Amino acid sequence: MRILYLGDVVGRSGRDVVAGRLPRLRRELKLDFVICCGENAAHGFGITPRICDDFFNVGVDVLTTGNHAWDQREIIPHFAKESRLLRPINFPPGAPGAGLGVFSDARGRQVLVVQVMGRLFMDALDCPFRTLDQVIRPYRLGGNVAAIVVDFHAEATSEKQALAMAYDGRVSAVVCGHTHVPSADARVLPKGTAFQTDAGMCGDYTSVIGMKAPAAIDRFVRKGPGERLSPADGPGCLCGLLIETDDATGKARRVAPLRMGAGLAETGLPHWH
Amino acid sequence: MRILYLGDVVGRSGRDVVAGRLPRLRRELKLDFVICCGENAAHGFGITPRICDDFFNVGVDVLTTGNHAWDQREIIPHFAKESRLLRPINFPPGAPGAGLGVFSDARGRQVLVVQVMGRLFMDALDCPFRTLDQVIRPYRLGGNVAAIVVDFHAEATSEKQALAMAYDGRVSAVVCGHTHVPSADARVLPKGTAFQTDAGMCGDYTSVIGMKAPAAIDRFVRKGPGERLSPADGPGCLCGLLIETDDATGKARRVAPLRMGAGLAETGLPHWH
Amino acid sequence: MRILYLGDVVGRSGRDVVAGRLPRLRRELKLDFVICCGENAAHGFGITPRICDDFFNVGVDVLTTGNHAWDQREIIPHFAKESRLLRPINFPPGAPGAGLGVFSDARGRQVLVVQVMGRLFMDALDCPFRTLDQVIRPYRLGGNVAAIVVDFHAEATSEKQALAMAYDGRVSAVVCGHTHVPSADARVLPKGTAFQTDAGMCGDYTSVIGMKAPAAIDRFVRKGPGERLSPADGPGCLCGLLIETDDATGKARRVAPLRMGAGLAETGLPHWH
Amino acid sequence: MRILYLGDVVGRSGRDVVAGRLPRLRRELKLDFVICCGENAAHGFGITPRICDDFFNVGVDVLTTGNHAWDQREIIPHFAKESRLLRPINFPPGAPGAGLGVFSDARGRQVLVVQVMGRLFMDALDCPFRTLDQVIRPYRLGGNVAAIVVDFHAEATSEKQALAMAYDGRVSAVVCGHTHVPSADARVLPKGTAFQTDAGMCGDYTSVIGMKAPAAIDRFVRKGPGERLSPADGPGCLCGLLIETDDATGKARRVAPLRMGAGLAETGLPHWH
Ligand SMILES: [Fe+2]
Ligand SMILES: [Fe+2]
Ligand SMILES: [Fe+2]
Ligand SMILES: [Fe+2]
Ligand SMILES: [Fe+2]
Ligand SMILES: [Fe+2]
Ligand SMILES: [Fe+2]
Ligand SMILES: [Fe+2]
Repeated sequence: MRILYLGDVVGRSGRDVVAGRLPRLRRELKLDFVICCGENAAHGFGITPRICDDFFNVGVDVLTTGNHAWDQREIIPHFAKESRLLRPINFPPGAPGAGLGVFSDARGRQVLVVQVMGRLFMDALDCPFRTLDQVIRPYRLGGNVAAIVVDFHAEATSEKQALAMAYDGRVSAVVCGHTHVPSADARVLPKGTAFQTDAGMCGDYTSVIGMKAPAAIDRFVRKGPGERLSPADGPGCLCGLLIETDDATGKARRVAPLRMGAGLAETGLPHWH
Repeated sequence: MRILYLGDVVGRSGRDVVAGRLPRLRRELKLDFVICCGENAAHGFGITPRICDDFFNVGVDVLTTGNHAWDQREIIPHFAKESRLLRPINFPPGAPGAGLGVFSDARGRQVLVVQVMGRLFMDALDCPFRTLDQVIRPYRLGGNVAAIVVDFHAEATSEKQALAMAYDGRVSAVVCGHTHVPSADARVLPKGTAFQTDAGMCGDYTSVIGMKAPAAIDRFVRKGPGERLSPADGPGCLCGLLIETDDATGKARRVAPLRMGAGLAETGLPHWH
Repeated sequence: MRILYLGDVVGRSGRDVVAGRLPRLRRELKLDFVICCGENAAHGFGITPRICDDFFNVGVDVLTTGNHAWDQREIIPHFAKESRLLRPINFPPGAPGAGLGVFSDARGRQVLVVQVMGRLFMDALDCPFRTLDQVIRPYRLGGNVAAIVVDFHAEATSEKQALAMAYDGRVSAVVCGHTHVPSADARVLPKGTAFQTDAGMCGDYTSVIGMKAPAAIDRFVRKGPGERLSPADGPGCLCGLLIETDDATGKARRVAPLRMGAGLAETGLPHWH
Repeated sequence: MRILYLGDVVGRSGRDVVAGRLPRLRRELKLDFVICCGENAAHGFGITPRICDDFFNVGVDVLTTGNHAWDQREIIPHFAKESRLLRPINFPPGAPGAGLGVFSDARGRQVLVVQVMGRLFMDALDCPFRTLDQVIRPYRLGGNVAAIVVDFHAEATSEKQALAMAYDGRVSAVVCGHTHVPSADARVLPKGTAFQTDAGMCGDYTSVIGMKAPAAIDRFVRKGPGERLSPADGPGCLCGLLIETDDATGKARRVAPLRMGAGLAETGLPHWH
């Protein structure tokens, strides 16, 4: 099956490029399943119920979040109601919402999506490696699920690659987010797991990770009281990873990074038949 | 002029792919100047005088380092002797070696190379923004220097993009290293500065940032006493950024990321005429 | 001369115990000069102009702040108007306010007060060691100033002790704050500098560093969306360090920690004649 | 019963002051149980089997460690053999050794000792709050154990106080270590748990947390290649917390901090009858 993962959507620029491009991508790329990280969709900080619906309406199947999961107060009760909205699974027990779900595509194939968060340079959640090991145990790739996609929301390249190498062959894909920069290392690991150190951001790249540059620069330089950060509002670029899996084994056959829109060198659509 | 920046070289795999590819690249790409980050060349940790010479012999003009600058004791006195070996300039005054140099290419054009290190998630050195501002003041792009290349060795994508945006138009390029993963965002910023959030690593990518995966995974999972990290020793991939500048203005005209060898999707050579 | 340093005042409990005790302490201990850290006075976060005045009215001569200096927007312009209000001197140039001042006591003796902030586990300001070295150079202990008090606002015990040992004999006192816990190591270092790793907090100790315990515990345990932190409001304890210096040399002759009020074992007043 | 907790022993200065003072303290204070943190006993880094025996021979009943648990390779297999040597219990499953033990005093009373490590500004181990909750569940204070002593090895005052407040009334004592500085806040919390934010260090206080000052200062100032850290070797000060519990309830009746030897203001022996 064909799965598209879209990296952290930042503000209106990000939402617009997703809404503008995704419906056609679903058709042209014959996408079976779309996962999107929405943790920065609401003016850079978190996501709202209404923005969730907007994403579902343009072709997103599952939304993930990350360290910004709780930024908007109104989203917190929504986690309990909307099973297509995930937050990292390694928050302590009792956190609102769920960290995984099994979803059906249009042809009834089951896809397990799990989001997990890293700890290096981040908050000390439960161990992502052990948590993942535990929660995926009931699922067999190519058995009760056609694919397993792990969204690893993490800062450090070392932790991301360590987790991907540790799960190589056990999941269909480890796709990562949080740094807002696409990595140029999308590939299928030796045992069949698709991997990219970071899928990048959907947003305005003439910015500092999606936020207007002057205020962001000021924080680094002046360290004093400053302007609030707000999303850059130029035309956005959609960044994501396209993964093709083998339904029989659940492993990845091939991957293609996607970059479409302003700011970065575009990839064009992959020519898969 | 054409400048190639090569990302952090890790261990023998990295050194071999650089030595094996660089001489031909210099010819075929008509390179005028080659900068290479060697901070992980000596078995993953630092660099030695002998390895420096090996790099210079295969076509490197200037070596930079980073947070691993002092890992090998024998390199410390070498910094004073070898002006082509740099370390981040924002170490406190009194640190061995120099953080910048002006070098001539074969046609006598002057290139200012400065290495500076980030602070977010790293050690608290002097402010990279203010230090850079101060040290480049004597130089005029397209005046007393044909090009200014800033090697920003940093962890956080936000700090890298903030520095690049802050210096856009004032330097020829801000190329970054340290994460060992190439970013897919190489571009020329609006005011003419070439930028890539990370040039990536020259080394074996079937690894955890160049080191053998099992010991690296173990550190994240077990947190206990474990095996030492050592470089992965499979075939390497060369990663870098090719920058073409305008000698009259010193600004970047275009950039092309390079990925050649095993592990990652190769870029091939850019078709520039 | 006799100098009293009062540790971080947290919320109303802290303000009340200072206001209730300080006037009498000034008389009974024959205090010549009182310095107080007010960075948490305004409901735990920052300080306001009105609270500044309240402190001055009960006998504080100089207020310092710290990492919470800018928490209250209305205090920012006040830094320019109120020379008795300091912020860490190693913020980058251009930060509002001043990091040091020379003040007269009632008998016309000059006291230099400098606040500087640590970097370990904190934000990357300018080097506290080098900044301090530079700014105290115009002053001679027992010469143009009778005393030099350094308020080192820092987290790590190692950094605090390193700075104190580095400046031993060059300043009258290195008194530290920020952890909100008094250390039991107040002493005069070998070359004559008074030192305490932390002067502690003025506030309600039946708390988590001055804040109500349930919400603070919740942050560590649940890591999810939670209640806001607010100051504990039980009776406070005043914590500080009393320093007696020799006017001729500016060095410290003796120190006595003070703890008065609820929560901790009280010290009583030192019996100095 | 009377329990003495001794803070992190650093190097020979620390070992000597413990060996020199403890035998007499056991007699004079009628100590029933002695716990000591030995994580820095071996030249500042870790502990060896031989040093363990030295501690047991002078009257230590249980040794704890901390983040330096694994510093000395030869201690690792020793954890399996020596049940009186503990390491933080919240290392991931599979770590060598144990994080708790139930020990008998001379009169056959059972004492549960648990060491747990903090995460703020430290490595991301398992949650100390939840782990502690889980492991102490089989024990009833004043029932199957006469006392429960939690050694919380942590950096941040906030995390230490949060854990102590969370466990107030459920354990006899939360005594903390790691910062190498005694706090002046030893007390019995409202529901009967003895607490001290840090018990301090047994070692030479004319130092930087027990290490020779020049090399330690140099690390903060120069950030360059420098001398190795080694323990200060002047006369040491013994720092610890004396806890008296009620055997019927297991709660703390009173506490007294102890500081004996060079460097700090000595406490003298408490006058308990
Ligand atoms: Fe994000
Ligand atoms: Fe994030
Ligand atoms: Fe590196
Ligand atoms: Fe590096
Ligand atoms: Fe404070
Ligand atoms: Fe503070
Ligand atoms: Fe220690
Ligand atoms: Fe420790």
